[in-house]
Amino acid sequence: MADLRDVAVIGVGATKFGENFDWGVDDMLTMACFEAMEDAKIEPGQLEAGWIGIQYPFTGFSGATLSDAIKTYDIPITHTENYCVSGLDAFRNACLAVASEQFDMVIACGVEKITDQGGRGLPTAGFGHPVQMSGLTAPSAFGLAFPRHALAFGTTKEHLAHVAVKNHFNGAVNPKAHFRREVTLEQVMKAPIISGPLGLLDCCPISDGSAAAIITRADIAKKYRDDYVTIKGMGFATYTNLMMYDKNFDYLAWRPTVKAAEKAYAMAGITDPPNEVDLAECHDCFTITEILNVEDLGFCKKGDGGPATAEGRFNIDGQVAVNPSGGLKCFGHPIGATGVRMIYEVTKQLQGRADGRQREGAKVGMAHNLGGLGGVVCGVVILTNEK
Amino acid sequence: MADLRDVAVIGVGATKFGENFDWGVDDMLTMACFEAMEDAKIEPGQLEAGWIGIQYPFTGFSGATLSDAIKTYDIPITHTENYCVSGLDAFRNACLAVASEQFDMVIACGVEKITDQGGRGLPTAGFGHPVQMSGLTAPSAFGLAFPRHALAFGTTKEHLAHVAVKNHFNGAVNPKAHFRREVTLEQVMKAPIISGPLGLLDCCPISDGSAAAIITRADIAKKYRDDYVTIKGMGFATYTNLMMYDKNFDYLAWRPTVKAAEKAYAMAGITDPPNEVDLAECHDCFTITEILNVEDLGFCKKGDGGPATAEGRFNIDGQVAVNPSGGLKCFGHPIGATGVRMIYEVTKQLQGRADGRQREGAKVGMAHNLGGLGGVVCGVVILTNEK
Repeated sequence: MADLRDVAVIGVGATKFGENFDWGVDDMLTMACFEAMEDAKIEPGQLEAGWIGIQYPFTGFSGATLSDAIKTYDIPITHTENYCVSGLDAFRNACLAVASEQFDMVIACGVEKITDQGGRGLPTAGFGHPVQMSGLTAPSAFGLAFPRHALAFGTTKEHLAHVAVKNHFNGAVNPKAHFRREVTLEQVMKAPIISGPLGLLDCCPISDGSAAAIITRADIAKKYRDDYVTIKGMGFATYTNLMMYDKNFDYLAWRPTVKAAEKAYAMAGITDPPNEVDLAECHDCFTITEILNVEDLGFCKKGDGGPATAEGRFNIDGQVAVNPSGGLKCFGHPIGATGVRMIYEVTKQLQGRADGRQREGAKVGMAHNLGGLGGVVCGVVILTNEK
Repeated sequence: MADLRDVAVIGVGATKFGENFDWGVDDMLTMACFEAMEDAKIEPGQLEAGWIGIQYPFTGFSGATLSDAIKTYDIPITHTENYCVSGLDAFRNACLAVASEQFDMVIACGVEKITDQGGRGLPTAGFGHPVQMSGLTAPSAFGLAFPRHALAFGTTKEHLAHVAVKNHFNGAVNPKAHFRREVTLEQVMKAPIISGPLGLLDCCPISDGSAAAIITRADIAKKYRDDYVTIKGMGFATYTNLMMYDKNFDYLAWRPTVKAAEKAYAMAGITDPPNEVDLAECHDCFTITEILNVEDLGFCKKGDGGPATAEGRFNIDGQVAVNPSGGLKCFGHPIGATGVRMIYEVTKQLQGRADGRQREGAKVGMAHNLGGLGGVVCGVVILTNEK
């Protein structure tokens, strides 16, 4: 078989993320997918299959959302929906299909159009989710992790603020980011409280956007470009919707991240993550989420996430560049698009094409995508430019 | 690589389909999945990954719908949503993953809980679908195919009724069918009109249910049972949500079925379908749909679907046994479950375990699953017991 490590990304595309009131789902998919195809130097007719991640039900129910946008008729297109991991799961299934050698050239993409849906956007995200159905929203659910972390490790609201400051610093120079501005520690600390301790600037925005990646095997990739990137490690894990009802849940770690990372590191042969991973697009839906995630990913010891961030260890020139794109916090978070947008950023970084936000000499990059309240589903994909 | 033809089904399970008011999503998934695991003689801990097809947004948003039901935590679980093909697309992605040799033992399942959702059930199916959003329901959309077919080929309402009579005859002896009764030609002809020409007995019911399949490679399957079945052909196609707005659409064929069947037959090496396929679970959401599909699948000439059905060519002992289970029409149609339920039936038939409805000597069986108004997405999977 084609080993999963032989699966290659040869093109990526993304729209600007933000309140894209002028653009519909079709517009954004068209922009992202054609940018990816142009980047890969392929034509739509070469695509043999597609995968599309969408979370919100009003955005699209089937693969035809993609075929109607980019006119790739008659090929199989799978629509994946897996909370905030919808996009990275589309990418994963596309990679498995390429590894099976059933398809030589495929597209994985994600899209979400949320801002102009009025009240339908976030409330409908609760359908079928027992915790959210009972009234716990995303900021309040993730915010609950703070007091326990603070008690156990002395994490402060200022530590959280450092995450926002870092990610806005990175995203401010990113032309496709939802927000293109820096924020100060004081601004984050004094922002209106959304759900204590999380203030407005601790929360990622509600964004529209789309991203896409062209996937093939390494032996084919060589014909298209020298600087293709390949899969080094991949791990996904699904836990439970009821985690926050579990009397043993201690709020100190998201188990899906831990399990997904274990698998991805094992496949990649990585035993010392902070010294072997150059950069990570890490799921920072809220500042506290990034703190727990960098610990769960092994980039620092459990409990050190706050101080390590404050010390600059996750800056672009730090030990691991965490969210060089600006992350969900600053780049934006159109649910189904986010996982593929992470692949976009990691690929650009590994190709040395991340203008203004480049991690110098990057060889190994990670996409880490977490979904569901408190972390129900997680995907970790590690890419490399080493041949 | 493991060829897709080396992918094997070693266990299947299904709930009774119907108005399962006493059962929730978890109950039905548990019943179907554990029946499949018992059939395969495996334990839940052996499952390395899962795929679950669900269409309705209130039923579940992620793979955790499956992990919470059967307690298979920490493994990757993909949720697919692709109109009525949601279930067969889950099966397809599971097969591709097994063919990639990334996983040795996986589960594909589908579930839907519609009957007790009140008005949320069918109206929400229209989200994102431009035709249905403008008021065209499923019976009216599919019913539109009749006048054109009647004009071109002389198809009559009585021809349609023969589909219902045949499928109810088959399903009447099926202990898991939604309806367990035969209907007469007169009953079908005189049933109240839902959307002309389709009467109540031309339409599949709204059902709850779940189905599951355990998938592995043939070399592993041998250790579990001698009568495992393998993939012989597979083809999927996605067309457009706008087909019914297309001025060139002639209502005489569903293009996704034609394209998916072409691919599946090519892979299977089948050139004379009616003489090489013993049985087919064929998407009969409405009687007219089966008429067009048996033509599109090449089981008879275009236009002959009505007379061929009336002549008994698609009876269990006919040229091709079409819907020996009773089909969507009689067995029921819980959207996300249906595609996997087709795999359940075809597997049972190929194992000679379809009590009372057995196609004698069956060696090659097909699951054909069509989704979206007028046929937007289609999957064809051909299984065989020939080693």
